[in-house]
Amino acid sequence: MLTLYTYWRSSAAYRVRIALALKGLDATQIPVHLLKDGGQQRAEPYKALNPAQLVPTLQHDALTLNQSLAIIEYLDAVYPQQPLLPKDPATAAVVRALALDIACDIHPLNNLRVLQYLTSTLGVSEQQKTDWIQHWLRQGFAALEQRLALTAGQYCVGDQVTLADLCLVPQVYNALRFAVDLTPYPQIQKVYQHCLLLPAFSNAAPEQQPDAQN
Amino acid sequence: MLTLYTYWRSSAAYRVRIALALKGLDATQIPVHLLKDGGQQRAEPYKALNPAQLVPTLQHDALTLNQSLAIIEYLDAVYPQQPLLPKDPATAAVVRALALDIACDIHPLNNLRVLQYLTSTLGVSEQQKTDWIQHWLRQGFAALEQRLALTAGQYCVGDQVTLADLCLVPQVYNALRFAVDLTPYPQIQKVYQHCLLLPAFSNAAPEQQPDAQN
Repeated sequence: MLTLYTYWRSSAAYRVRIALALKGLDATQIPVHLLKDGGQQRAEPYKALNPAQLVPTLQHDALTLNQSLAIIEYLDAVYPQQPLLPKDPATAAVVRALALDIACDIHPLNNLRVLQYLTSTLGVSEQQKTDWIQHWLRQGFAALEQRLALTAGQYCVGDQVTLADLCLVPQVYNALRFAVDLTPYPQIQKVYQHCLLLPAFSNAAPEQQPDAQN
Repeated sequence: MLTLYTYWRSSAAYRVRIALALKGLDATQIPVHLLKDGGQQRAEPYKALNPAQLVPTLQHDALTLNQSLAIIEYLDAVYPQQPLLPKDPATAAVVRALALDIACDIHPLNNLRVLQYLTSTLGVSEQQKTDWIQHWLRQGFAALEQRLALTAGQYCVGDQVTLADLCLVPQVYNALRFAVDLTPYPQIQKVYQHCLLLPAFSNAAPEQQPDAQN
């Protein structure tokens, strides 16, 4: 029995939704609205489930897990169909490094709570906030583009979908949302386009979620 | 043949130094000074090795790897002595989640380049910078403390050293450096103290490195 606590626009939840879909797993999805009521993630019952007050959280029977990459590695070990990490340790390391380039070096800086701190506590302007978002996306994508030139085939690492692609696609979604020009990143664009041809990726997109708002 | 590009105060490099020591591996350490010459990580030859211009980078024969957690998982697969991840997928996931709680939710926000952006581009004051650092450390540690209450023995998860401890100790080092009061976090303090009893941890500390400055 799998339950995913999710928010349509959370790119970390988006990663897990892709993994579930690729592996053909059904999970009950419980939306946690990150803005409504001052943020439902900050209130009970969710706070008790995940004291970091972030999404996603996955429950599998008695196990409660946070952190999208830990969740995906767990799903990959327990449901080995459509593996998301190569068997060879060196190639697996390259995949994990690309995933972490996004999950550690780009995503955390543009997370909702950070943007809220910038505006509420530091009083930065809307323009400064946009500059901040674009700065970290551009800096991260510039490095990623160079790495993908060495590793990519149809996907981030060769021609198999891996954990790296599950991180890339939600991050590109964010970049487009924040009007980052992708012209300097042809490798990133190419992989993104290939991934979106797969229903597991396109169906996991924010706008396809039951809790999506327009 | 192992080569580690490192900086004494980088907590990501510190994690890898602990892993190497626990596994009894000798690596040639090449210091990359993050402040001198405008940051040696931003210049050749290092920039070609790691386009993200961050430390650490590990070279193992022909393989060049970035991202401390990917490096440690790789070392753990190739050098299985003193394993850093439990075999059971559920326990391994708990370990990885704790490691990522630090590596994704705390560390990236207080990284040098982010602090430089806050002061240089946004013009925040020294006090605002300190508040920022302490805010993310406290928020992260509060969540971590609750998780460790459920998982910790002598170490973060039971009585074996894992990847989670390799992330915790450098983060506590940073917290002490930035004068965060650890009184509210007895579990974190207990694990930190246990880890420092092991020479692999104490010898990997920033002040013990050849490139340390006082």
